[in-house]
Amino acid sequence: MSWKITSDLIPDLARGAAVLGTGGGGDPYIGALLATQALREHGDVTVVTLDEVPADAVVLTVAMMGAPTVMVEKLPSLDEVTAPVHALGTYLGSPVTHIACAEIGGVNSTIPIAAAAALGLPLLDADGMGRAFPELQMVLPTLSGITASPLAFSDEKGNVGVLQTIDNSWTERIARVACVEMGCSVMISGFPMSGEQAQEALVPGSLAHCIEIGRGIVAAQEAKADPVERTVALLGGRELFAGKVVDVQRGTTTGFSRGRARIEGADATLSLSFQNEHLIAEADGRTLVTTPDLIIVLEHDSGEPITTEALRYGQRVRVISAPSDERWHAPEALAMVGPAYFGYDQPSHRFDGSVEEPLKVAA
Amino acid sequence: MSWKITSDLIPDLARGAAVLGTGGGGDPYIGALLATQALREHGDVTVVTLDEVPADAVVLTVAMMGAPTVMVEKLPSLDEVTAPVHALGTYLGSPVTHIACAEIGGVNSTIPIAAAAALGLPLLDADGMGRAFPELQMVLPTLSGITASPLAFSDEKGNVGVLQTIDNSWTERIARVACVEMGCSVMISGFPMSGEQAQEALVPGSLAHCIEIGRGIVAAQEAKADPVERTVALLGGRELFAGKVVDVQRGTTTGFSRGRARIEGADATLSLSFQNEHLIAEADGRTLVTTPDLIIVLEHDSGEPITTEALRYGQRVRVISAPSDERWHAPEALAMVGPAYFGYDQPSHRFDGSVEEPLKVAA
Repeated sequence: MSWKITSDLIPDLARGAAVLGTGGGGDPYIGALLATQALREHGDVTVVTLDEVPADAVVLTVAMMGAPTVMVEKLPSLDEVTAPVHALGTYLGSPVTHIACAEIGGVNSTIPIAAAAALGLPLLDADGMGRAFPELQMVLPTLSGITASPLAFSDEKGNVGVLQTIDNSWTERIARVACVEMGCSVMISGFPMSGEQAQEALVPGSLAHCIEIGRGIVAAQEAKADPVERTVALLGGRELFAGKVVDVQRGTTTGFSRGRARIEGADATLSLSFQNEHLIAEADGRTLVTTPDLIIVLEHDSGEPITTEALRYGQRVRVISAPSDERWHAPEALAMVGPAYFGYDQPSHRFDGSVEEPLKVAA
Repeated sequence: MSWKITSDLIPDLARGAAVLGTGGGGDPYIGALLATQALREHGDVTVVTLDEVPADAVVLTVAMMGAPTVMVEKLPSLDEVTAPVHALGTYLGSPVTHIACAEIGGVNSTIPIAAAAALGLPLLDADGMGRAFPELQMVLPTLSGITASPLAFSDEKGNVGVLQTIDNSWTERIARVACVEMGCSVMISGFPMSGEQAQEALVPGSLAHCIEIGRGIVAAQEAKADPVERTVALLGGRELFAGKVVDVQRGTTTGFSRGRARIEGADATLSLSFQNEHLIAEADGRTLVTTPDLIIVLEHDSGEPITTEALRYGQRVRVISAPSDERWHAPEALAMVGPAYFGYDQPSHRFDGSVEEPLKVAA
C-alpha cells in the first residue's frame, strides 16, 4: 500500500539511513535538511511499495556521488538534484515515472526524497543495496543485468554529462574521474529500469525500514532502554565490540574517504577499515566481519549512528554487525563487493563471524 | 564552389596538415589510412566552401582528442569515428547536415574526412583554428561565443558520453579526465553551430590549403627545388633555424605529450617547447617565436613535416615560422592560447620576431 513521506518522518528516516549506511553515504542530516526543504516547497511525496509499481514504469535512481567528506560541505540545491533526472529524461526520450534510491545510506536515502518532491514523482519504498557501498556499480540491479547507463551527472556549477557505457564498471570509472574533476561531489541519476525490473532487482521496504530503525532508537532513548540493543534486534544482528576511539586515519583520495579507525575496548582493540563505508572489522588481527555484511558504529549510550567522517578521538562507541541482503553472498556478488575487490586478501566473514568459502570467480 | 575529396588527394592533404599541425595532432599518415579506407568503402566526400554553406545548416566538428603518442597506437575504427556524431545527433534531436574540422593538424584534418564519408555528409572546407592546439576550447568558435557543448566523446570499447557544460573550459576539463581514464585517446564531436555561425567563426579554405602545401612539397622534391623554401613562401612565413636534433625530452602527462627538443645549428642552439604542439622557439635563451604563431619542424632536405612524437636524435631539420589567423592575436585570444596560458611568463612573439604588448586580461 502506498504511503506518504511527510517532513515529520524525515528525522527518523535519516537516523535509520545513517545506521544502514554503515558509516558512509555522507551526513544524513545534510540530506534531511534538503528533503525537508523540498517537502515544504513541493508537498509530501507518495511512496509506492514494490508490489504496486506498474510493470511498465520508468524508474530512475537518484544519488549523490563523491567523497562524504566533501559532500557534507556542498549541500546541493534542489535544481542540482533534479538536473541529472531532466538530462536523462531528455536523453531517454520517455517520461520518468518513478524515483528510487540507489543505496539506503546517508544522504542517498534523503536526496531521492528531495528529487521526488521537486519533480512531483512517486518514490519507491526500495533501494538498490539494502545498505551503502562506495562505487556506483555496486548495486543489486548490476547483478540482475540492469545497466547503470545511460547515467547522468551534474554539479553545482551547472555542468551536466550523460554516459552510455559498455558495462557498469565503466560507468563508475568515467563518472568517478568526472566527479573528482568537478569537485569530488556530483549528483547522479541512472539505472533506468522498468517497474518489473525494479521488483526483481531492488531491496523492498527500505524507507519504511529506515523509519522503523530511527523510531526504535528514539523510543529506546525515551524509555531509558538500550537503543543499541534495540537496533541489533531490528537488524537481526549482533553486538561486536564496545570501546573508545583512540585513532582515526582518514584521507580523501581518488574521490573517496579512505581510512582506518582503532577502538580500544576492555580486553582488545578493534580496527575498522573503510572506503566511505566500513569494510572490515578486526580485533587484535583476527577478522570478525567484512563487507558485504554491515558494520555499524553507534554512540555508546544514545545509539546514534556515527558516520566515518564524524569518527573522532575519544568517542565512546559500540560496533554492531548485521546481515546484508542474501543476494550479496552469491559468488558474482562477492566478486563485486567482497573483501578481495577492495584489496583485502581474505574471504568474506558474515555478520555472525562465519567464514565464506574463498572465491574463484573468473575476471 | 564545392569539390570532391578523392583518395588520391589524401597523401598531399595529410602532408599539408602535418605542416599546419605545428608538430601536434598526431601522425597524419594514421589519419590518412582511415580516410582512404572510408573513401573506398563509402565513396568520395563533397567539400563545401564556407560561402556556400546554408545559413541553417547544422554543423558539428569531429576530432580525435588525446596524447598523440597514444593516438598513433590506437587507430580508430570507422564505427568509433561516427559514434560521437550519432550520440550528439540523438541528444540534439535534429539531423546533422555538415561535418567540420576543429583543427587542421595531424589526424584531425583526415579523421573528419573519414567521418563525413561514413556518415554520407558533406565536409566544410574550413577548420576552427587554422593550425592545431592542444586543448579543445582553443578554437576560434570559442571566441565567437559558440559553445563546445553539447559535446560527445567515445572510445574504441564502445563507451560514449555527452557533456553539457557552463563554458568551453569545463568541456575541456571533464572531457580530458574522461579521455585519460578511457586510455588517453577518444573521438569527440561538438561545437554544434549553424551555417551562419560557421561562416563567421571558422577559418576558410583549410582543406584546399593543406592540399596546396602538400603538393608544393612534393612538386619541389620532384623539381629538385627546395621544399622548405616553397612551404615558407606558401605560408607567408620565414625560416628560423637549421640544425641537428641533439636532445628530445618527452613525457605523456595529464593526457598530453609534453616536452622539449634541442636543435644544434652552426652558431647557436634552438630550443623548442611543446604540449602536443610546438609552443615556444628560443635560440640561446632568446625567444624567437611563440604560440599562437606557427612553429614547424621540417626534414632538412625533403621538407617533410616532423611531428613532435617523431622527433629523434640526429635528425637534420629546418624550423620555420608562419603567421596564425589574425584573430588569434586579439587580447582575449592571446589569453586563451598565448604563452602565459601555457605557463611561460612572456609576451607573444609573432612569426617575424615582433613582440606583442604584454597582456592584462581579467581572469
